[in-house]
Amino acid sequence: MAEISQMIDSEVFLAFTSYATIVILKMLLMGPITAYFRFSRKVFANPEDVSLKSKKLEDQKKMLRIDPDVERVRRCHLNDMESILPFVLIGLLYALTGPDLRTALLHFRIFVGSRFFHTIAYLTPLPQPSRALAWVVGMGATISMAYRILSTGLYL
Amino acid sequence: MAEISQMIDSEVFLAFTSYATIVILKMLLMGPITAYFRFSRKVFANPEDVSLKSKKLEDQKKMLRIDPDVERVRRCHLNDMESILPFVLIGLLYALTGPDLRTALLHFRIFVGSRFFHTIAYLTPLPQPSRALAWVVGMGATISMAYRILSTGLYL
Amino acid sequence: MAEISQMIDSEVFLAFTSYATIVILKMLLMGPITAYFRFSRKVFANPEDVSLKSKKLEDQKKMLRIDPDVERVRRCHLNDMESILPFVLIGLLYALTGPDLRTALLHFRIFVGSRFFHTIAYLTPLPQPSRALAWVVGMGATISMAYRILSTGLYL
Repeated sequence: MAEISQMIDSEVFLAFTSYATIVILKMLLMGPITAYFRFSRKVFANPEDVSLKSKKLEDQKKMLRIDPDVERVRRCHLNDMESILPFVLIGLLYALTGPDLRTALLHFRIFVGSRFFHTIAYLTPLPQPSRALAWVVGMGATISMAYRILSTGLYL
Repeated sequence: MAEISQMIDSEVFLAFTSYATIVILKMLLMGPITAYFRFSRKVFANPEDVSLKSKKLEDQKKMLRIDPDVERVRRCHLNDMESILPFVLIGLLYALTGPDLRTALLHFRIFVGSRFFHTIAYLTPLPQPSRALAWVVGMGATISMAYRILSTGLYL
Repeated sequence: MAEISQMIDSEVFLAFTSYATIVILKMLLMGPITAYFRFSRKVFANPEDVSLKSKKLEDQKKMLRIDPDVERVRRCHLNDMESILPFVLIGLLYALTGPDLRTALLHFRIFVGSRFFHTIAYLTPLPQPSRALAWVVGMGATISMAYRILSTGLYL
């Protein structure tokens, strides 16, 4: 069997590295967006967070509630984790199977594009099925890479 | 110190790749299962999702609620992320420490088997402690691999 | 372009492996901590979990509720996943860019330290902005590594 190091086509790996880093940064951005909505809506999850905004007990109680906009950002963040983390892990293993550069780029571009669109569709929100479609397209790219991994070599 | 590429035993790495891909695919399946329960139970999280199912405002309000079955699938999905993503990351580093093939296969098979059983135990649901046991076994496999990583070489 | 295997500085990779494993183990610990709070507070999420603690229907219903302490641990766990999983993935790609050992160690130590402090600040809880600061510092280390990856080579 070939050495892993020989199986790596450096351009494919560099492309993977670039797209993976960009889409992880997009996911990390959901943290500050949540914080922005929490501060602008004055909605917090922990009593100690509230004390930064007001010293009055009555005001503090009001701020410990569920807000639909904050929950929307949190669901978007969770969906990112459900989709992007598997993509990065599957993509890493896929890049090691020595795929054709153009095919690999197609997978990476479709996935990353679909996830940026998904975030816009979720936070705007755009009418459905735009968000559902973005999710399906991203999922399809990940499953296609997983299929390539399993068909290249299966050792169970 | 040995080159990373020399530390890789290709069969171990191929086995890791196969099991990691399969268990990630299992985790990805939780997304469609959630969608299936949302549609069959008519329970949605976002106002724009509801508009696909009914145009009546009254019907739409009814669909924006919490359903125990949907929440069960979502908890199962979250538990998968809490367990499977650490397994894949720890497993990747573990495969690079050059473990014995039979030992590595044992870890991968126990973990992946325990997670398939965990999902069945969660969604059926089977009486406890079957789900708790599945969780503990999977955790044990991951911690055992982590121990091997840290005992092979620790650089702090 | 250089081979990936030549780009790996073994000491940097070993340091990454050590810190990544430790911080993932810290994250895995949140599962047992959640279980501990669920059992000590007698608060469960699933009807089948409750039957282990009591056979009386009335007692069982009481145990299926939301508890602020349990939710705090769960939020801490989720925040770990949002921060630590991106760190490990970005850190892996970063270690392959051949960074200076001292710079790499600085990133790994700051991140891992900030996350241990974050957990303490969340669970104690310490007054804000200690938790917020821990989160920002960890995020900064990850973003700094992502910047290094993208500036080393970008292939889009």
